[in-house]
Amino acid sequence: MTLTGKHLIGNRESSESSETFSAANPALGTTLEPRYHEATESEIDAAVSLATSAFDPFRRRLAEARADFLDAIANEVLALGDELLDRASAETGHPLPRCASERDRVVLHTRQFAELVREGSWVDARIDLPDPTRRPLPKPDVRSLMQPVGPIAIFGASNFPIAISVLGADTMSAFAAGCPVVIKAHPGHPGTCELAARAVLRAAAATRMPEGVFSLLHGKSHAVGTALVRHPGLAAAAFTGSLAGGRALFQIANARPIPIPLYAEMGSVNPVFMLPGALKARSASIADSFVTALTTGVGQFCTNPGLVLGLESEEWSDFSEKARKNVASWSPATMLHAGIHGAYESGIAALLQRESVELLGRSAREADPAKCEAAAYLFRTTQQGLLGDPTLFEELFGPVSTLVGCGSPEDMIAIAETLDGSLSATIHGAETDLADYAGLVEVLQRKAGRLIFNGYPVGIEVCHSMHHGGPYPATTHSHFTSIGTRAIRRFIRPVCYQDWPDAMLPIELQNANPRGVWRMLNGQKTRDGVVG
Amino acid sequence: MTLTGKHLIGNRESSESSETFSAANPALGTTLEPRYHEATESEIDAAVSLATSAFDPFRRRLAEARADFLDAIANEVLALGDELLDRASAETGHPLPRCASERDRVVLHTRQFAELVREGSWVDARIDLPDPTRRPLPKPDVRSLMQPVGPIAIFGASNFPIAISVLGADTMSAFAAGCPVVIKAHPGHPGTCELAARAVLRAAAATRMPEGVFSLLHGKSHAVGTALVRHPGLAAAAFTGSLAGGRALFQIANARPIPIPLYAEMGSVNPVFMLPGALKARSASIADSFVTALTTGVGQFCTNPGLVLGLESEEWSDFSEKARKNVASWSPATMLHAGIHGAYESGIAALLQRESVELLGRSAREADPAKCEAAAYLFRTTQQGLLGDPTLFEELFGPVSTLVGCGSPEDMIAIAETLDGSLSATIHGAETDLADYAGLVEVLQRKAGRLIFNGYPVGIEVCHSMHHGGPYPATTHSHFTSIGTRAIRRFIRPVCYQDWPDAMLPIELQNANPRGVWRMLNGQKTRDGVVG
Repeated sequence: MTLTGKHLIGNRESSESSETFSAANPALGTTLEPRYHEATESEIDAAVSLATSAFDPFRRRLAEARADFLDAIANEVLALGDELLDRASAETGHPLPRCASERDRVVLHTRQFAELVREGSWVDARIDLPDPTRRPLPKPDVRSLMQPVGPIAIFGASNFPIAISVLGADTMSAFAAGCPVVIKAHPGHPGTCELAARAVLRAAAATRMPEGVFSLLHGKSHAVGTALVRHPGLAAAAFTGSLAGGRALFQIANARPIPIPLYAEMGSVNPVFMLPGALKARSASIADSFVTALTTGVGQFCTNPGLVLGLESEEWSDFSEKARKNVASWSPATMLHAGIHGAYESGIAALLQRESVELLGRSAREADPAKCEAAAYLFRTTQQGLLGDPTLFEELFGPVSTLVGCGSPEDMIAIAETLDGSLSATIHGAETDLADYAGLVEVLQRKAGRLIFNGYPVGIEVCHSMHHGGPYPATTHSHFTSIGTRAIRRFIRPVCYQDWPDAMLPIELQNANPRGVWRMLNGQKTRDGVVG
Repeated sequence: MTLTGKHLIGNRESSESSETFSAANPALGTTLEPRYHEATESEIDAAVSLATSAFDPFRRRLAEARADFLDAIANEVLALGDELLDRASAETGHPLPRCASERDRVVLHTRQFAELVREGSWVDARIDLPDPTRRPLPKPDVRSLMQPVGPIAIFGASNFPIAISVLGADTMSAFAAGCPVVIKAHPGHPGTCELAARAVLRAAAATRMPEGVFSLLHGKSHAVGTALVRHPGLAAAAFTGSLAGGRALFQIANARPIPIPLYAEMGSVNPVFMLPGALKARSASIADSFVTALTTGVGQFCTNPGLVLGLESEEWSDFSEKARKNVASWSPATMLHAGIHGAYESGIAALLQRESVELLGRSAREADPAKCEAAAYLFRTTQQGLLGDPTLFEELFGPVSTLVGCGSPEDMIAIAETLDGSLSATIHGAETDLADYAGLVEVLQRKAGRLIFNGYPVGIEVCHSMHHGGPYPATTHSHFTSIGTRAIRRFIRPVCYQDWPDAMLPIELQNANPRGVWRMLNGQKTRDGVVG
C-alpha cells in the first residue's frame, strides 16, 4: 500500500497545510517517506463535525452491527500482513516479533469488545417496576441503561505503535460503546497509524458504518492536540503518554466552556518489594526475572519496575549483585525515537550527578547514540537517600531502576506511604510474607491499580478483570481503566427513562428482554423478562 | 438537644475562630441561635487528617458492619423526632410535611445503601482464571473488584436541608463504599446540619466505627470550601448547588498538584415538550399538573421545569391560558433564604426588561419581601425570541418558567438541539407522538440524564435505576449520579490482583465466594465458587 501522508477525514483525504514532518528509523537514523502534514484548524473541525453527524446513525445501529464492525477491523488488520509489522518496526525500532505480538493483542482486544457488545450486559440495564397504589405518591416506572457519550478524541502511545495507538483498546472500546473516534496520530509512527486507519476505514465501509465514525489527523506540534481537545463537538478524550503531556491536555479539557473528561494514562514508578521469604528461597532467579522485566522492550513500558525495595541482608546483597551482573551483560538496544532517547540520556546523566544515589551497574557495552541505543542502568540508594530526594520517585522512561535497601519492615512501609499513585505494585515473597507484611499490602492497595505477586507488571493480560489505571499521577481518574473490557466505561453514561412506553424503550430495557441481557430488576440480577 | 455552633471533628468539638454567622428564619426575618463558627485552616486539616487515619480501619470493617452503621444512622435520624423537622423548617421555610418527607427519603436511601452493602455485588468482582499451558506466555490469574478511594468532602444543597445535606445520598454512598466523610455544612441550615451530624456520630459510636469516619465543619465564606477541596488528604468531593459554585470548586479540584474528581450537580433548565396528542386530549389537566410541578417547593428544585415547548395551535393557547390562570391563583410563598430570594427577584426583574420574552402571567397576590416570598411567573416567547437570547436557556432558581411557541416539529427539534445538558427532559404526548417525534427523542437522549413521559421531573424516585445526572452544566461528569444506588460509583475504583494467594484476597474475590456475590468469571456472570 502506498502511504500518502494525508489526513483521513471520513472517506476524504486532506493535506491543507504545507507544514510537514517525517518519521524516522531510530536504528538507522534515516528518514522515512512520505512527509506527513500538520492538521489545520479547518481539518480538525471537519473531522469532529463529521464525527458529530455520525454519532446518531452510529449509535442507532444494532449491537450486532457494531460487533460486526469490530470483527471486520480485526480481519482487516490481519489482512495488512507483514506491511503493518515492517512499518511499525521501522518507525519504532521494535523487533518484528514484538510487532507481531502487538498485532495479536489488537486482534484479541478487538474481538473481546465485539463479544462484549454481542453479549450486551455491559449496558447495565436496570428496571424498578411501578406501584400505582403506593402512598403518599404512586411509584413510577423507572429504567436506565448506559448510552454512548459522543465523539471521542484519542491520543495513542509512542511505545505501542500497534496495540496502544490507532488500533488500541481506546478506539475499540469507544466503537463498542457507540462513539465515533477522531485519532490524533502519534508523530513517532505516522505511517503505522495510516496503515491501521485505512484498515479501520475499510472495515467501516464493508459494514456500512456512517462516514465520520472514524477519522485520522496528523500533527507533530502541540497545537493540533490542543485544538482537537478544545473542539466543542467532543464528548471525551483519551490519552496515553507522559505525565507532562497528559496533565497539559487534562487542564485544557477542564478549562473548556463545557469541560470534558480527559482520561490520561501517564505511566508510573511501579514499585517492586522483595520480601525476605522470596529472597531467601530464590534471590538469583528473582534477579534474572527482574532484569528481564526491566529490559524487555528496552524498558519502554508504563509498567516498567522503576523502584525495587528490599531489607538490607545477605540475600538482598546477593540479589543486587546478580542483578548488577545481568544488567552488565544486557546489550544496549534502540529506543523508540530520538526524543525519548535524548530524555533517557539526560535523565541518566542527572542521576549520575545526584548524591542521593550511587551507580550499581550498567550495560558493559557502550550504547551507540547514532542508533538511539540505551544502556541499562541500575542505581542503589538507602531509605534516607530516597526520602531525601523526591525526584527519585519520578519515572524515567527506559531500562533503569533504583534498588533501595531498607533497614526494617517499618522503613519499607514508611517508603510505601510516600509513594505517588502507581499503575502497579509488586511483591515477591513467600505466602507467609504477605501475612507478615499485611501493613505493607494495605498501603499498596491505596497506592496502586494492580497488585502482582511473584511476577512483574509488564505484559498486561487483556481480559475482563484487568485494571490498567490507578491514582494520580498514574491516571487522571482512578475509576477508569484503559485496558480490559471495563475500558468501555469511559465513554458511556446512564440515561434513565421514567414511565416510558415499552415499545419506545431501548431494546435492553423492554419488558420482554429480547436480547436476553443481564438486568437488575427491582434490585435483583436476572435475565428474565418482565410481565408488562 | 442544645445546639452548640461548633465543628464536630470526630469526637471533638472545636470553635477556634471568633468569626461567626447565624442562620435565619426566612419567613419571619429573625435570627436563629446559636452562632456558628467559621472553620479555620487548622480545623479543616484536623478533620481531613482524622478522616485519613480512619480510612484503613473503616474500609477493613466487614461489609456487615458498614451496613449496620448505615442502619444505625437511619434509626438515630428517626430518634431525633420533631426536633430535626422543626429546625429544618425554621431554617428553610419548608412546611413541616415537606421536612417529614425529606426525612422519609433519608431513611429510605440510607437503608437502601445498607442493603446494597449487605448484598455485596456492587463490588463488581471479576475473575479470569489462569492457564499455565498457554503459549507463548502462561496466562496469569487476574481478579479485580471495586475498593473505596479515600476521604470524601461533601457540600450539601440549600434546598433539601435533610435529604441532600449531611444525611444525603452523597454521605450514605460514601459510607457504603468505605470512605470517611468530611461535611462542609450548608450555612443556610447549620442547625439542621448539627442535629444530623450528631445523629451520625451517635450511630458511629454505637457501631464502633473509627473516630474520624465523619466530621462536620461550618463556614459561610468561600475560604472554608476552597481550603477543604485543596486539602491533600481528600480523594474526591461531591457538591450540590449552583453552576457558579460547582464550577469554581471543580476548577480548584482540577488545579491541585494531585487533582481529585469534584462531582457537582448544578441544576438545569429541564425542558418540557408538550406534543400535540397530549394537548388535544387534555390541555387543561396538563396545565394543572404543570403549574403544580412548577410551584411545588416554591420552585426550588434542580429539576424544576424552566422551559416548556409546544406547537402554536388552539390547544397550545388553551394550555397557556389555563397555566396563566393557575399561576395567577398560586399564592406567593417563602423561599429558602434571603440570598436565593434576592437572586430570584433580580432574575425576574431582568426577564421583565428583556425584549425576547413577554410576561404571560404571575401570582395575583403580591409577594411579601419581608417573608422572602416569591411570586410565580410565567413568561412567553417564540422560537426566534429564544434562539436570539441565550440567557433564556439559563436556569433561574424559583417558580418561574417560559413557554415557547414553536412553528413546526422541525423548529422544536432545532431548539432541542441548542439546549445545554440537562438533568431531565420531559415529553407529554400520546404514544403515537413518540413515534412521530422520534427525531426529538433522539436529540433529548443526547441532552439529558432522565427522560420522563407524561409526568414531571420533580420528585425523584430513590431506586437502583434512578439517574440524577446529565451532561454539563447539569453535572461535572455525566457518567455519575448523585441519587440512586449507582451514586456509590463516584467513590470507588478498581483494584486488580494478579496471581495473588487465595487466602490473602479480598473476600469477594476468594475462590469459595463466601459472601455469595455475583461475579464475572471468565466473562460469565455467576454466584458460584471457583474450584481452587
